[in-house]
Formats: sequence, C-alpha cells, structure tokens
Amino acid sequence: MKVVNIGIIGFGNIGSGVVKLLNRNSSILKKRVGIEIKVKKIADIDIKKHRDIKIDKKILTKDAREIIDDPAIEIVVELIGGIHPAKEYIIDSIKNGKAVVTANKALLAEEGKEIFKTAINNNQDIYFEASVCGGIPIIKIIREGMIANHINYLAGIINGTANYILSKMEKGLTFKQALQDAQNKGVAERNPSLDIEGTDAAHKLVILGSLIFGIPLTLKDIYTEGISSLTPLDIKFAQEFGYVIKLLAVAKETSGNFQFRVQPALIDTEHPLATVKDVYNAVYLEGDATGKLLFYGKGAGQMPTASAVLNDIVDIARNLHFKTRMRIPPISYLKKSYKVMPVEQLKSSYYLRIMAVDKPGVLSKISNILGKNNISIASVFQKERNKEEAVPIVMMTHEATEKNISMAIKKIDKLPFIKENTVRIRVEE
Amino acid sequence: MKVVNIGIIGFGNIGSGVVKLLNRNSSILKKRVGIEIKVKKIADIDIKKHRDIKIDKKILTKDAREIIDDPAIEIVVELIGGIHPAKEYIIDSIKNGKAVVTANKALLAEEGKEIFKTAINNNQDIYFEASVCGGIPIIKIIREGMIANHINYLAGIINGTANYILSKMEKGLTFKQALQDAQNKGVAERNPSLDIEGTDAAHKLVILGSLIFGIPLTLKDIYTEGISSLTPLDIKFAQEFGYVIKLLAVAKETSGNFQFRVQPALIDTEHPLATVKDVYNAVYLEGDATGKLLFYGKGAGQMPTASAVLNDIVDIARNLHFKTRMRIPPISYLKKSYKVMPVEQLKSSYYLRIMAVDKPGVLSKISNILGKNNISIASVFQKERNKEEAVPIVMMTHEATEKNISMAIKKIDKLPFIKENTVRIRVEE
Repeated sequence: MKVVNIGIIGFGNIGSGVVKLLNRNSSILKKRVGIEIKVKKIADIDIKKHRDIKIDKKILTKDAREIIDDPAIEIVVELIGGIHPAKEYIIDSIKNGKAVVTANKALLAEEGKEIFKTAINNNQDIYFEASVCGGIPIIKIIREGMIANHINYLAGIINGTANYILSKMEKGLTFKQALQDAQNKGVAERNPSLDIEGTDAAHKLVILGSLIFGIPLTLKDIYTEGISSLTPLDIKFAQEFGYVIKLLAVAKETSGNFQFRVQPALIDTEHPLATVKDVYNAVYLEGDATGKLLFYGKGAGQMPTASAVLNDIVDIARNLHFKTRMRIPPISYLKKSYKVMPVEQLKSSYYLRIMAVDKPGVLSKISNILGKNNISIASVFQKERNKEEAVPIVMMTHEATEKNISMAIKKIDKLPFIKENTVRIRVEE
Repeated sequence: MKVVNIGIIGFGNIGSGVVKLLNRNSSILKKRVGIEIKVKKIADIDIKKHRDIKIDKKILTKDAREIIDDPAIEIVVELIGGIHPAKEYIIDSIKNGKAVVTANKALLAEEGKEIFKTAINNNQDIYFEASVCGGIPIIKIIREGMIANHINYLAGIINGTANYILSKMEKGLTFKQALQDAQNKGVAERNPSLDIEGTDAAHKLVILGSLIFGIPLTLKDIYTEGISSLTPLDIKFAQEFGYVIKLLAVAKETSGNFQFRVQPALIDTEHPLATVKDVYNAVYLEGDATGKLLFYGKGAGQMPTASAVLNDIVDIARNLHFKTRMRIPPISYLKKSYKVMPVEQLKSSYYLRIMAVDKPGVLSKISNILGKNNISIASVFQKERNKEEAVPIVMMTHEATEKNISMAIKKIDKLPFIKENTVRIRVEE
C-alpha cells in the first residue's frame, strides 16, 4: 500500500484531534482510500505537554523547519493559526514541493491571494476545508458539489460562539451573562472579540464569497457588525413579530453588483436558518440549478475540524497517488474586477426600537421623520405606557435604504423625549 | 482547452435539463474546470418531440448503440431509467472503455453489485450522484466529505413526493386528496406506487446504506412501509403530542448489527428533519468525528438533478484530463458479510390509535394486554366520549419491541368493543 507522509505544524487542540482521528479510524481510511497516511513529524513550541494520544515521542520537534525541509514529507498541515509565521511556513512548504492543508481562515482572508498564487505558480495543491464551518464540508460542496451552478446568494450562521450567545439570550440572559456562560463552557475565548465583533465570520465570508463568485474578495469588502450591543429585549420583541435574531454572514449578487455583510439580522421563524441553535453552524445557498440548499453541522471543535483536515489530506493523498496536481484549483477566478455596493445603498426592512417618554404627539413626530425619509411603517408595538421613564416603541418598517434609515434615526435621536440611542436591526428575507 | 465528449442516452426531462444547464453555464464551467464538456450525441426513442433547447439536430439518434460504440465518446450518461436495457447499456459502455454517469437508483439498488464490479474490473469510473437526493451532493459528501468518519446513523427524508403529500395532510387533506393534488401539480406520477409505498426511498437507502457502512446491501435488507394508510387524524394527534409524521429512511449500526427501514415515523418537532416540508429532501447523519450533520435541498426535479449529473461529468472529465481512473471507487467494501436485525427485534416507542366504543373497563382491558406484553404507557389521550360510535384512544408507549407491539395489537383488535384496526407508528428518536 502506498504511504503518504505528512508533517503537522501545531500540536494544539486541532492537531491532536487529527492524530487521534487518524489513529482511531486508520483501518476504515486504508480500506476506503487504499493509501496509508503516516504522520512523520509534528512540530510545536511545547512538546512536553501531556496529550492523551498514542504517538512515538521521537516524531515531535520544536522546529517547524524540520518539517518544511524534510524531503520525505509530501503534505504539510498548518494548524498554528495567526498570520506569522504561518504564512512563511506555508509559502516555504509550497516552494519546497509540498502540498499544504490549512485551517487558517484569518490568514487566507488576509493573505489568500498571495498564497493561492504561490500554490498555482508552483503547481502545488493547497486545501483549506477546515478554515470554514468545521465538520460541514462546505468548500467541497461549493467547489465540486455545485460546480455547474451560478450561485447568487449565500447566508450563513458561521460563528458558533456568537450563535451560542444569541441562543442563550433567547432564554433571557443578557449579553454579558451569555458571554460569561460561553467562556465558562469553553465556547468563547478569554478575549472573545474576534467572535463577538463579527471578525471571524468576516474572515470566513471572504473565503466563501471568493469561492462562490470567483472574485478576489478582501476583508475590507465585508461590512461587519457584531452582537455585543444586542439586548434580550430586542430578541423578545423580535419573537413577538415572528422573528429570531442571528449573526448572519451574507453574500449576494444582484445584476453584477455584490454585497457582503456580517451583521445581526432578523429572520422569519420559518426560515431554514431560524432553528440553528447553540454552537451549530449552517450555510444556506441558492444555486440557479440546485435551488435552495442548506448544510448544517458543528462549525468548530476538535473532532469536526479534524474531520475536515483529514478530508483534505485524503484528497491530496489521492492526487499524489495518481500523480496529479491542481486537480481542483484553490480558486477559479471568473472576474478580476467587481463592484461592491456601499452599505448605504442596500435596501431592507428594519426593526427599530425607539426609547421614548410617552407624551402626546410622540408617535406622530417619529412617524413624520420616518415619512420624510421615505420610510413607511409596517407595524408598531408599544407595550406599556409610562409618563416618567422611557418605554420602548418597536416598529417594523417596509423596505428602505440603509442611508435613509440612518438619517431618520439621527433625527429621531435628537428629539427631546428620546432617552436612548435607537436600535436598528436589518431584516433578512 | 481539452474537450471531453459525452453521449447522453435518454433525452427526457433530466436529459434536457443537463443540456440546458451545459448551454446556460458553459462559460463558468470552462473557467472553473478548464475543460470543455461537449455533447457529441444524444439518443432517445423520440427524437421528433419539441424540446425547448438549442441543439444541433444532427447529434440526435434513435440508436443508443451509436453512443456506446462511438470511440470518440469518453463519458456515457445513462438517463433512461428502469432495469433493461439501462443495465446492458451501462455494462457495454464500460466494456467499450467509457466512463459512466447514471441517475438510475432502481438499477443500482437491484444490480449495483454487478455494475460496480464490472466498472472496477475494467478500471472505468462510474458516478451516480443524481441517483439520490437530486441537488444535494450527498454521495460526494459521504464518500469524500466524511471520509475519515465512522458513520453509524443516517435518517433521511429522501422521497419528495411522499413528503409533499404528508405536508398537505398536515393542512388537513386526506391521503387521497393530497395525492390528487400532488398528481395535478406534477409532483406525483399517474402510477404513484413507487413513491407512496416507500420503494423509491428503499432504492435510495440501499445506495446510501452501502456507502456509509461499506457493505453490499440489497433491497431485501430494507424493511419498507408506505404512507397510504396514514390519516389526517393521526397527523393531528401526533402534533398534539409534539411530533410530526415523516416518511423516514433509516440506516443504523449498533455494535455490528445493522437495521434498515423505510417507514412513516413520528419525530419530535424540534428534530432537525421536522421542518423539512413539501418536495424538499434532507439527510441527517452522525459521524464519529463530525457529530450531527444535516443536508437539505430539492431531491428531484429537472435542474437539481441535472446539477448532480454535471457534478459527476466534471469529476470524470477531471479524471480523464489527469489520466486517472478509479480515483474514487464506486464503493469501498469494509465488510463482506453483515447482520441485519429482524424488524421484530427492534425497539422503539410507539404511537397507537385504538378505535373503541367507550364502555366502562375499556381502558383497563387494553392496558392489561399491553402490560402482559411488556409495554408500558407513557401517555394517553382520549378526546370525546361516545357510547355509540367508536372514538379514538391515542397512546404513546415507552420503548417496546416491534414483536411485542404486534402481539399486543393482534389481541387488542380482537376485543369486542374495538371497531377498526389499531394504527401503530414508530417514534424515531
């Protein structure tokens, strides 16, 4: 049986998972693939730490260069994360004639163009299934399973931490309490900003958007908003209108104009993404031939991510076995230039929560401002009346541009009886 | 650019869809794949019929042999369905050195072993994504996207017609009315028996079960029940207990014992499959590394199925381009012999609807029979009381064997105050 030697750089949670899964399922893998995948070396800055995995200690090294420069290693698996030295390790591995598997979404979102170009120029495979949505093989699905489709819409719940926090908030917890709970359970990191500010989802959307549209998308094309300013009150009101609030990553093409957004959005409780709870991820896609598709599963975690890494290792091992390279190019560019619509021009219905002291004429003044900005109200909800403290006036608008909504809110928030900044959340149809 | 010539046998709904999709998206396909896919010949018994597709009439033939024997055709796409002559066409194409793409689930379920063996012996690719779940690339997902996983559970809604009928029955239609509606809309065929009796789902389950477990499954291993005896009354009662009724295809392994079933089942409204409505399909899988996954989309129809056919054509075209064969074997057998548990031994909770004239002691006699057969009742529901006509007594049981449930029902149905055969539906956890 042919043996393919791999070297793993980064022996943390995911690296350990890859070795554990290889050990556990090596017999099915050999039968299914007909190739033995052998871990020849593992590099990590900490090689003393106890890891609950059966390995030969001699394959551990502190020096990643021992992998990158080892002529017997055919596939380098980069699992250290971050930009440097991950980028250099990957580029040097490619130049040394090795194929690369990486789970590094931040690196691909920021430096993907250069890395992919290096891979193509050197005719070396680079696979990155584990960089998006963990156990869901979404990259394979897009690149191979929808190959003949023109995809013009993608909406995803692609950050498990944020989704977990929102699911807890649906049960009444405040954002702070939900975050605390997520941190206690290991679902959120000590410094949670990448997840809660939407940056992690934006990284993944750069990768997904580039793939579905075949354009060299960059992080600055993504409009990004996080979930830290959401309150249980808004989640409760959304429910009363028949919606749930999710942190959505959206990529959309409308007659050649693109939009890319990561932001909290109201979705109808009947929407296929509405029932995606806790740490689960899901990607909803519309292909011109397939119609609507939804793919659901765990977007992170040791074993789901290890599963994705192994998909890639096997794909490359098969390529090596058959002496093929670039069977699937990292990305097929359909367009070199593309136009991203400014967020101000985007249209949507909106949820508005206006905190006002209830005096005669309040609603009339607010609706007057909305009307002047071409915003019409679909429904209003005002629960209790209180002449001393501010009470919420909740509205669902008809379709309006982001620009008009912003202008209207700016004016509303200057009215004397308004006590807090107005909350505005997009409705995703 | 390399050109791959294909020949299509069967120019019906799906065949037309394949040509339509190739015409429509040829420019993205060329950019993504770097190979031109050219339809060299199309065979159909009716080449006069008007089809709304731009093609050169000269490529049409009534004789499939013109395709099978054409040395310039590298891929034969079989879309005529049925066992004969589809089987002979496929086998002869393989022997003539061609790769094959087929959407023929019935053929693969019944003759797959021989066809796959012929393909392997002749070192020719055979791909069959379109045979299961239309636009959802479930075969690629299982064979490549979960390659390192041990899968021990699959539950799918894999017949869109049956699911459409059940969705209509949820709205109060009888089975007959719902079937009529499905036929009027073209969702059900004039002779709907393959769909409503579960046979079509069983064909697909043979393919999926063979793939996930790596065993040479046959149709007689599948316990199959259809939906024609379901009533809106049962659907309504199920809802009151917090369930929906779906035609499920289930494959499960428990310590080396396999079970394969196609049958109506109650699933909790919170189950990921519960919200799959109308003609949509979904497959729920549990991998030991990925955890729970769900894949949702259109399981049939011209363009979703054409999309799946094109996935396969492209995969093979890439193989041809790189001069590789059998990159992905049609099936990797992990076990030659396997044990299927008799349905009588399977355990489950059950929904029972017993139609009884309400007399004193009725419930006590029924529960006495259940108790003697080791069946304990989880909850009972009896809506109206009527001393003349039979009224429904609806029960949810705790876990019991199919054998005990059958014996108990046989006895219950002999009681003098029982007016109809008792309805029993499995609960799928």
